[in-house]
Amino acid sequence: MSQERNRQVLLVRRPQGWPVESDFRIEEAPIPALEDGEFLVRNHFLSLDPYMRGRMNDVRSYAPPFALGEVLGGGTVGEVVASRQVKFPVGALVEASFGWQLYAKSRGEAVRRIEASAVPLSAWLGVAGMPGITAYVGLLDIGQPAPGETVVVSGAAGAVGSVVGQIAKLVGCRVVGIAGGAAKCGYAVQTLGFDACIDYRTPEFASAFKDAVPRGVDVYFDNVGGSILDLVLSRMNPFARLPLCGLISQYNATEPYAMRNVMSILVNRIRVQGFIVSDYPSRWPKARAALAEWVIAGKLRYHETVADGLEAAPRAFLGLLRGENLGKQLVKLI
Amino acid sequence: MSQERNRQVLLVRRPQGWPVESDFRIEEAPIPALEDGEFLVRNHFLSLDPYMRGRMNDVRSYAPPFALGEVLGGGTVGEVVASRQVKFPVGALVEASFGWQLYAKSRGEAVRRIEASAVPLSAWLGVAGMPGITAYVGLLDIGQPAPGETVVVSGAAGAVGSVVGQIAKLVGCRVVGIAGGAAKCGYAVQTLGFDACIDYRTPEFASAFKDAVPRGVDVYFDNVGGSILDLVLSRMNPFARLPLCGLISQYNATEPYAMRNVMSILVNRIRVQGFIVSDYPSRWPKARAALAEWVIAGKLRYHETVADGLEAAPRAFLGLLRGENLGKQLVKLI
Repeated sequence: MSQERNRQVLLVRRPQGWPVESDFRIEEAPIPALEDGEFLVRNHFLSLDPYMRGRMNDVRSYAPPFALGEVLGGGTVGEVVASRQVKFPVGALVEASFGWQLYAKSRGEAVRRIEASAVPLSAWLGVAGMPGITAYVGLLDIGQPAPGETVVVSGAAGAVGSVVGQIAKLVGCRVVGIAGGAAKCGYAVQTLGFDACIDYRTPEFASAFKDAVPRGVDVYFDNVGGSILDLVLSRMNPFARLPLCGLISQYNATEPYAMRNVMSILVNRIRVQGFIVSDYPSRWPKARAALAEWVIAGKLRYHETVADGLEAAPRAFLGLLRGENLGKQLVKLI
Repeated sequence: MSQERNRQVLLVRRPQGWPVESDFRIEEAPIPALEDGEFLVRNHFLSLDPYMRGRMNDVRSYAPPFALGEVLGGGTVGEVVASRQVKFPVGALVEASFGWQLYAKSRGEAVRRIEASAVPLSAWLGVAGMPGITAYVGLLDIGQPAPGETVVVSGAAGAVGSVVGQIAKLVGCRVVGIAGGAAKCGYAVQTLGFDACIDYRTPEFASAFKDAVPRGVDVYFDNVGGSILDLVLSRMNPFARLPLCGLISQYNATEPYAMRNVMSILVNRIRVQGFIVSDYPSRWPKARAALAEWVIAGKLRYHETVADGLEAAPRAFLGLLRGENLGKQLVKLI
């Protein structure tokens, strides 16, 4: 173990609306000493994900809020650098939720040993990790697309949406993405193989979207909520499915968007299902294996936006909320 | 066959917002002559149901709109009074969708012979008919209540809601109704056995509702939509189910209600399922048998609000939309 000290990002103030950098503080801390059964991990990558915004609020939700003055939580991959635990020897690569810090110690609960040979280490946080599994479970288990159906996904160039669309193409669906900006839409179509991708920031969005789904929408995998959800609801087909994965347009809103098209849910007998991937633990192994296999076979492409160093994490997180990332937003810690 | 002529209620203008009586016209018509294979039915009761309002609009929906200048559709029970069809002899009692008229002829498609001995004839249009089956399928198949859970139903004193709450009590749930006015709420609690019923027309509605669901809401069977749906969403538990059966608060609205609590669907992983009972034909026989059995056994109570004569149908329909009925709204035609 080096003489380096640990560094951590703490939440020091609950954001009101959009977070600001002063809601966070970077601190040094001693590297924890190990007791029998424990091991020390040097994190290589930290995952930044939209759900983190919700946990910065002090409200009842599906996970407890992040505590003020404590290290922010988050998914990580790293390497064991000291160990008094035979199952996690020095050199082992691990995926865990060690949060926004360089070092963490553990007894191994909820820590998974990974192989870097199959896919790059960072991919276990993205395409073959939680976001990819979210796409897999939400699309296949909840969305249940059939070949020939039209699948729409918002956040189409993001970590989850990009996988949703590609899996839907593997199923044999027509896939229409919704994303912010021409660069993301071009990426979704040209690199990911979507049939179309509509830029919601243009004034022609509603009519362009309508033109892109001439046979209506059978599955809408929603990552954003708000006015986009309202628009897509107006184009959904009878018996459509709507996995509600995220509402990123709402996370920093001081007033919730007022949704108008509730009637479509009734008239079209739509199934709207809010879901959180951690509720589906039994699906993770199969999903992870399938995703990694598709990556290796070249059937699943992914992009990473990588911020350099722990100090860059707060700003990168704000960028994620603003949609500045393409694909998976990571922080490189080493 | 008597020398009486047929009388019919036609839709002569599509309502804008709330229907008015001049949207309807009552006409006489000859009683149709029979060909081989046909029979003539004298309708005894016409069912009035909220869904009819939607079909008065010329919009894409789950059923085609009622045609202008034509007899309005609707469920009926009646008696065969002339017949050239051996399966439906004179004297047979039948349930069908012969619409807002005294007489109709048929070849027997979608006509069901019924026994008046089991339950009164009119019950096949209500508690043991389409509304009761709606309650049965929506609650049991979609709502999937478990004993000890809290079930909330709006339109609690109506044809569907009253059955929903009573079945939920049979399952062993805590049942909270929502209805308009003290009389309906008193009926739901004292006659139907609901644990509580909250009058949405009082200023204390939101706080009284909150007090009535101290353990939150596991199933919300929604008949009304609008602000009541929004309120109930704010009290729903993780993994709650929300069968969306009707949106009667919206049927005459010129602007849709703007729903705020979409976030609850995500955070609580709620399943919202719009449904139409006609999509579940395989469930009808079992549901109908169970409902009739519960009625006979005294486990399922029901009330009928009966308008007298075909001429009273338009006004009774307006009353139904305003919530003036208690229980099932019928029109007695004989």
